[in-house]
Amino acid sequence: MGERIEKDSLGSLSVPKEAYYGIQTMRAVDNFPITGVPVHASLIGALAHVKLAAARTNAELKRLPNNIADAIAKAATEVTSGQWADQFIVDSIQGGAGTSINMNMNEVLANRALEILGYAKGDYFHCSPNNHVNMSQSTNDAIPTALRIAAYRSSNKLLATLRQTQQSFIRKATEFDDVLKMGRTHLQDAVPIRMGQEFGAYGRVLERDIGRIERAMEGLLAVNMGATAVGTGLNATPDYIRLVVAKLSEDLHLPIRTADDLVDATQNTDAYTELSAALKVLAVNLSKICNDIRMMASGPRVGLSELVLPPRQPGSSIMPGKVNPVMAEVVNQVAFQVMGNDHTICLACEAGQFELNVMGPVIAFNLLQSLDILAHALDVLDRFALQGMTANRERCQEYVENSFGIVTALNPHLGYDVAAQLVKEALATGASVKALILEKGLLTAEEMDEILDPVQMTTPGIAGEHLLKDQG
Amino acid sequence: MGERIEKDSLGSLSVPKEAYYGIQTMRAVDNFPITGVPVHASLIGALAHVKLAAARTNAELKRLPNNIADAIAKAATEVTSGQWADQFIVDSIQGGAGTSINMNMNEVLANRALEILGYAKGDYFHCSPNNHVNMSQSTNDAIPTALRIAAYRSSNKLLATLRQTQQSFIRKATEFDDVLKMGRTHLQDAVPIRMGQEFGAYGRVLERDIGRIERAMEGLLAVNMGATAVGTGLNATPDYIRLVVAKLSEDLHLPIRTADDLVDATQNTDAYTELSAALKVLAVNLSKICNDIRMMASGPRVGLSELVLPPRQPGSSIMPGKVNPVMAEVVNQVAFQVMGNDHTICLACEAGQFELNVMGPVIAFNLLQSLDILAHALDVLDRFALQGMTANRERCQEYVENSFGIVTALNPHLGYDVAAQLVKEALATGASVKALILEKGLLTAEEMDEILDPVQMTTPGIAGEHLLKDQG
Amino acid sequence: MGERIEKDSLGSLSVPKEAYYGIQTMRAVDNFPITGVPVHASLIGALAHVKLAAARTNAELKRLPNNIADAIAKAATEVTSGQWADQFIVDSIQGGAGTSINMNMNEVLANRALEILGYAKGDYFHCSPNNHVNMSQSTNDAIPTALRIAAYRSSNKLLATLRQTQQSFIRKATEFDDVLKMGRTHLQDAVPIRMGQEFGAYGRVLERDIGRIERAMEGLLAVNMGATAVGTGLNATPDYIRLVVAKLSEDLHLPIRTADDLVDATQNTDAYTELSAALKVLAVNLSKICNDIRMMASGPRVGLSELVLPPRQPGSSIMPGKVNPVMAEVVNQVAFQVMGNDHTICLACEAGQFELNVMGPVIAFNLLQSLDILAHALDVLDRFALQGMTANRERCQEYVENSFGIVTALNPHLGYDVAAQLVKEALATGASVKALILEKGLLTAEEMDEILDPVQMTTPGIAGEHLLKDQG
Amino acid sequence: MGERIEKDSLGSLSVPKEAYYGIQTMRAVDNFPITGVPVHASLIGALAHVKLAAARTNAELKRLPNNIADAIAKAATEVTSGQWADQFIVDSIQGGAGTSINMNMNEVLANRALEILGYAKGDYFHCSPNNHVNMSQSTNDAIPTALRIAAYRSSNKLLATLRQTQQSFIRKATEFDDVLKMGRTHLQDAVPIRMGQEFGAYGRVLERDIGRIERAMEGLLAVNMGATAVGTGLNATPDYIRLVVAKLSEDLHLPIRTADDLVDATQNTDAYTELSAALKVLAVNLSKICNDIRMMASGPRVGLSELVLPPRQPGSSIMPGKVNPVMAEVVNQVAFQVMGNDHTICLACEAGQFELNVMGPVIAFNLLQSLDILAHALDVLDRFALQGMTANRERCQEYVENSFGIVTALNPHLGYDVAAQLVKEALATGASVKALILEKGLLTAEEMDEILDPVQMTTPGIAGEHLLKDQG
Repeated sequence: MGERIEKDSLGSLSVPKEAYYGIQTMRAVDNFPITGVPVHASLIGALAHVKLAAARTNAELKRLPNNIADAIAKAATEVTSGQWADQFIVDSIQGGAGTSINMNMNEVLANRALEILGYAKGDYFHCSPNNHVNMSQSTNDAIPTALRIAAYRSSNKLLATLRQTQQSFIRKATEFDDVLKMGRTHLQDAVPIRMGQEFGAYGRVLERDIGRIERAMEGLLAVNMGATAVGTGLNATPDYIRLVVAKLSEDLHLPIRTADDLVDATQNTDAYTELSAALKVLAVNLSKICNDIRMMASGPRVGLSELVLPPRQPGSSIMPGKVNPVMAEVVNQVAFQVMGNDHTICLACEAGQFELNVMGPVIAFNLLQSLDILAHALDVLDRFALQGMTANRERCQEYVENSFGIVTALNPHLGYDVAAQLVKEALATGASVKALILEKGLLTAEEMDEILDPVQMTTPGIAGEHLLKDQG
Repeated sequence: MGERIEKDSLGSLSVPKEAYYGIQTMRAVDNFPITGVPVHASLIGALAHVKLAAARTNAELKRLPNNIADAIAKAATEVTSGQWADQFIVDSIQGGAGTSINMNMNEVLANRALEILGYAKGDYFHCSPNNHVNMSQSTNDAIPTALRIAAYRSSNKLLATLRQTQQSFIRKATEFDDVLKMGRTHLQDAVPIRMGQEFGAYGRVLERDIGRIERAMEGLLAVNMGATAVGTGLNATPDYIRLVVAKLSEDLHLPIRTADDLVDATQNTDAYTELSAALKVLAVNLSKICNDIRMMASGPRVGLSELVLPPRQPGSSIMPGKVNPVMAEVVNQVAFQVMGNDHTICLACEAGQFELNVMGPVIAFNLLQSLDILAHALDVLDRFALQGMTANRERCQEYVENSFGIVTALNPHLGYDVAAQLVKEALATGASVKALILEKGLLTAEEMDEILDPVQMTTPGIAGEHLLKDQG
Repeated sequence: MGERIEKDSLGSLSVPKEAYYGIQTMRAVDNFPITGVPVHASLIGALAHVKLAAARTNAELKRLPNNIADAIAKAATEVTSGQWADQFIVDSIQGGAGTSINMNMNEVLANRALEILGYAKGDYFHCSPNNHVNMSQSTNDAIPTALRIAAYRSSNKLLATLRQTQQSFIRKATEFDDVLKMGRTHLQDAVPIRMGQEFGAYGRVLERDIGRIERAMEGLLAVNMGATAVGTGLNATPDYIRLVVAKLSEDLHLPIRTADDLVDATQNTDAYTELSAALKVLAVNLSKICNDIRMMASGPRVGLSELVLPPRQPGSSIMPGKVNPVMAEVVNQVAFQVMGNDHTICLACEAGQFELNVMGPVIAFNLLQSLDILAHALDVLDRFALQGMTANRERCQEYVENSFGIVTALNPHLGYDVAAQLVKEALATGASVKALILEKGLLTAEEMDEILDPVQMTTPGIAGEHLLKDQG
Repeated sequence: MGERIEKDSLGSLSVPKEAYYGIQTMRAVDNFPITGVPVHASLIGALAHVKLAAARTNAELKRLPNNIADAIAKAATEVTSGQWADQFIVDSIQGGAGTSINMNMNEVLANRALEILGYAKGDYFHCSPNNHVNMSQSTNDAIPTALRIAAYRSSNKLLATLRQTQQSFIRKATEFDDVLKMGRTHLQDAVPIRMGQEFGAYGRVLERDIGRIERAMEGLLAVNMGATAVGTGLNATPDYIRLVVAKLSEDLHLPIRTADDLVDATQNTDAYTELSAALKVLAVNLSKICNDIRMMASGPRVGLSELVLPPRQPGSSIMPGKVNPVMAEVVNQVAFQVMGNDHTICLACEAGQFELNVMGPVIAFNLLQSLDILAHALDVLDRFALQGMTANRERCQEYVENSFGIVTALNPHLGYDVAAQLVKEALATGASVKALILEKGLLTAEEMDEILDPVQMTTPGIAGEHLLKDQG
């Protein structure tokens, strides 16, 4: 392969001759063999967009010669389309602030630009990672800007899947609207409800999650390009600041804007904590929904068996014929991961100091993972479990008929204590509540049937209200 | 004192004769001797408002005789003003869903109403905790409605203090606007910044926290009164649902509304996770700010000593003359508590099942504590630390003069590598960077002074930009 | 009441004349109105023991006049027995390291000693909070030592209850040993198990929790008395260090020892994180067990109904006759609280800096709460739920008879695929698996009965092993 | 490439002809496209060991024909050495309990065994994934056993690195033993300490972490092989249970044993929570240590500058000459990740239900990651930061001379109040404390020098003790 020698302020090092990355990438690879997982492709892509916009702006402002700017821009465009992915070799968890991924990008773009310009790799006099590619930038504005863009775009992907899944829940709410079943509180028999109402509630909470994520995304659009090292904009002119963000916005078709206060936008990471918190709330809700689904689908013979999930794979390596609620289980696990990731993100955000939060790499690692796995898990939950699930209507009906919960409708007519007494007696004797009511002459059969109609109990109102005397 | 005997569906028990609470409260006290901390007064107050609105609505709908409704309303009004506080004796962490605090309230109001009506305590035929006070309600709508109201009102108190503190940071930003100091990234010397810019950034992030909390509060205003047991509204008429919320809204001067979907609003607790998440984001930000303050105030001789905090108490029982940053320390600790509370709240919210989340008591306990302690801590931080802190201008100035960070301004003129070389040589030889520049003839003295003006470095721009040739 | 004027290095302040606390307590009350919850009584008691041991040691070493030492010792002894509890008025969450609770104690003991000696309160020349009561100590050794003792003693109380509860599970394992039921994995029907095996497993994991807590307690016994301000022992002689710990150990009947490295023991808080982690593991286990109990007790008609819990209180304010698993629910909530508290404790422990972790107050607040509420919750779980619960044997038996899970025993005889096919056909046609086996001539009736005996399936072995040919 | 058709109980599917995995792996890949990260190699390796031991045991017990057992054993041995790694394609986060990774393994081994035996892939009659490879096993014993083994082996690797790092801290303690510096509490100047004492304390806490991890590892050695589906051992004979564990133990040279209670060992996951908790405690301690290191190394001109770290890479893309404490920063981030992972693990462990915890895959994903990244981070911290760091002795000395903290040594001689007054006056007037002492005639010059010797202050004792009169 051959090698080339590169130098930086700490000394010199040999780099594989064909590599587009350079000495600082080599140092970072040596320094940070942590997770084995390279930096997320969406962050690489967004960072290339940042470099592209900066190069063009610097050319426009006549700080960068056009030929160099064009070469950098061509290189950056290639990276945005996924080319040279194998040149980004620094670890996801790396030294503070993402200097290493910024320099990995600066080196790859510089060397690719050199190649385009007809120079040898490493001949940084003609196009330098620091002086040309990184011109007017710092890790401290380029990386946060790239992370915000990457997180925004991943959020959009998540939202697309979440909206689809949410719609499936609403469709199921319609499909199950006439499935009468017993409601449960404290896992104890409560009063009748329709399964469609339950799925409607699942859909409704996810609708709010969509709103929460949308609101949290707002904050990502305010970037700190031009903040340079500490937010003061040293070495970045006001023209540059205005133009670079305009270009980014145009290239990405996103309403990206310059943060009102660049010092604030450089030191604070609340945009990430806020987004991660919204994801965590979604995770909590999804986990609850999947727990319900798993309980409703429990069985087939020794569980509740109210819901039947489409079988996706044999459920056991030992128990023949077993089918497990694997899609719900994977969503539960993803929810736990997202909740743990949120914890990591909060710890990292709390650890900011003075002008910068250097914990950016671990924030990016967790935030982008949370966004990805939520989108992936929702997609398979929707396609492989939600859309094909069916209600076990007979079982649900049977439960309603067997339960005591309907006596709640007697309260306005007989009072809580009498109703409680009926349940107690029914449990003790095995008699039905209805038989006891008639036997004791508490209501006529007609009154009883009107009051104890379970379907009517699933909408607001007092069954047999006209039978009540005014109490006023 | 004497005792009276009360009965419920499980049997009978003796209750202190003078007690307004009754048998179910007694059972709960016996069952749940957990934290020793009674239910939060703001939840008690809000629940009394719920009972008041329900009694008046039931009377208006002629389901409750006027005299009983009036007595309950009078009793409830007394409780809202803090009377009978010693009668609410059930523990903060209690059996699921808050049945016990709801029954504690129902019993206190029933017995106080009986007293008002001229009957003996415990004579529930004339005014019953379940049939009259709890009429048209369930624990499952009364308690979540009360918790939302309590959380909303506590949030408002927190916001008042947070706004005040945020304003103090902004005022300090003005006061410190001309305090030139060295910025720090990675805890290493970076480039100049003004202390006012730092305090402005603190103010800005808190401004966003205000917005986050305000948005999260929105969700609290949608209550599930009339949902009764599982959200279907069994035993609650549409008229009741409309009127009871209108009365609550009127009594509390808050735009409370009926949730769009009562099943959803009964089973889902995302309003709490969302608010707690907003508090957690605030906590993360406050902890970062207080860490900065403590580092800036470190010293007096062996620390950074950029900031002087007003002494609030002797700092040590052994080290004479020591003064500690106690107000910042207490905010850090409150932030940790709020972050832990958020964890508890998420666990509890994830544990909802089917039509109800029974973990309400522990949610309320943590959410109301977080709101309280943040308000209290911000208030003392503002009054006892923030308002009286002063900048150590001499020390800050000294730092700027001693640091190498200003060489960053040389990049556009000499290039990154040359500037890095200057720092290296200065560190090795002890020479000043300026002397080296002149010695090497890199810039004239005039150019150098123009480029290396630290004040100019604190706003966007390239120092000595006119000295650069067009690169286009 | 009257007031007296006290002075400290920051100035003077008026103190209620009768108060035993003094100026520094007054300052702390003013500074830290955070939770409204005073410092935990067990920490107060342990701190009084620390002061008692120090006073006696200083007298023995002739640094403190005997009469003063005796007066302090008498005062401290009174506090250990709960006297003067109302004089400890500083908040649980206070300025760093617990200086305020240490000074609150120093002042109360000094003033009570002055009273004993016949002097007026506040006449600190004769007995000073700093010079006499706090002699040879610092907040930084006195408070950590007291917290370790308090945590150790609370851990012992928790262990007593945990052992009792663990024994109850083991007793239930015996009682339920012959209750045959269907095991569940993935909430799906699996293979037969005995309920006693399940309760045995609950008992076993709690046994390990006992071991984990015992091991974590070990670390608490190494105290840093004599470390004074930063662990170097400045102002504390080796004799003092040896004697003060010996006295503490003797007074408390605990094998307390001096930490091997006082600098380490002053700056590090891993003893607390370790104990809290053990509590968290217990909480995780308890929550799982209580979830199982709640699911097994779900019903009575619309749930699994395998277990019947003793009714402890009416379950609903609206649904007559409902009884909820409130004891299990309260344990779940306590588990969530303990897990959240662990989070707070970790955040606080991570925030130590250099020679000290100043976040001690919030650590103590959460650690002592976790210990208390676990003990309280386990006690009521044991007495009010565990001891009285009964198995619904008929229901369990019915489940075993109805389920397909037993086909797993066919694997060695017919192979997994054939067994799976039988289940599929049985589900589709409604036929029983046994009928299909005979119909298809797969086994004789005798072979089938031997292989499909569910009781035999609950212990290791291959049912009908003798029917298998050697495969070797 | 070509395809082959495979069938299972849910239908048939085409599989790449050359693939060793089969239909169930295909289903899992389709079902779980979650993280993109395949199952950890150490879990794959351990699972292959499990299969190897099972095959040999089944052959020895004459349940599996020797030729099939030999082929499976050969295949499994190949996998343990890393061969066929590309055939394990199911996602880290997958359906519950790890059925899919177990079946992926069963299929790869079956097909490789078929190849060895001279049959075509997919010809499962001669060697079946379920009947032969999985014989006497269930996912529910094979996977937990494999995870325990994998976690144990990774823990051992972590321990090796941790011990090495801990030793480096102890060596640094010796090297820095004579570096006198000022101790800090509350980030405020306290009293003198030696830097070696600080590094000794770091070493000491890590020594306890080693012990905690060792103790937590103990629990991993009790495996549930033979538990099969729910812990009852259905289809696993006592001989098999005994032999399979003996073989595992022998093959791996680890004292693996059968758990005392297989039902317990199948449903409970406390071995993982316990280990993760120990890792979290380590993470908390490491984060604190690295925070200290970063603060001590802060500067070079505008920070504390007590410590000089070896430069590892240029610190900034914009600020020339800047060098950041990147190794400490990466450890901080790893610590945050481990703390978040612990959160995920606890959530997953809490979610176990009845006979099984199906959240195994996410537990494995996080636990094995935590073990890996801690080992990797400690290794680079040790080699790249710890071993080469040097003390800035001049700066440390300067601090001691400038600080007031030494006045604490005056307490026994002059009393706390007088000492505090001296500090106050020195701060106000700029005079030195020593000058004031002499000026006021509080001590003679000789007494003063003896009492205020900073080196003596770093060990227990009262400076100038002989000057004190007996107070007895």
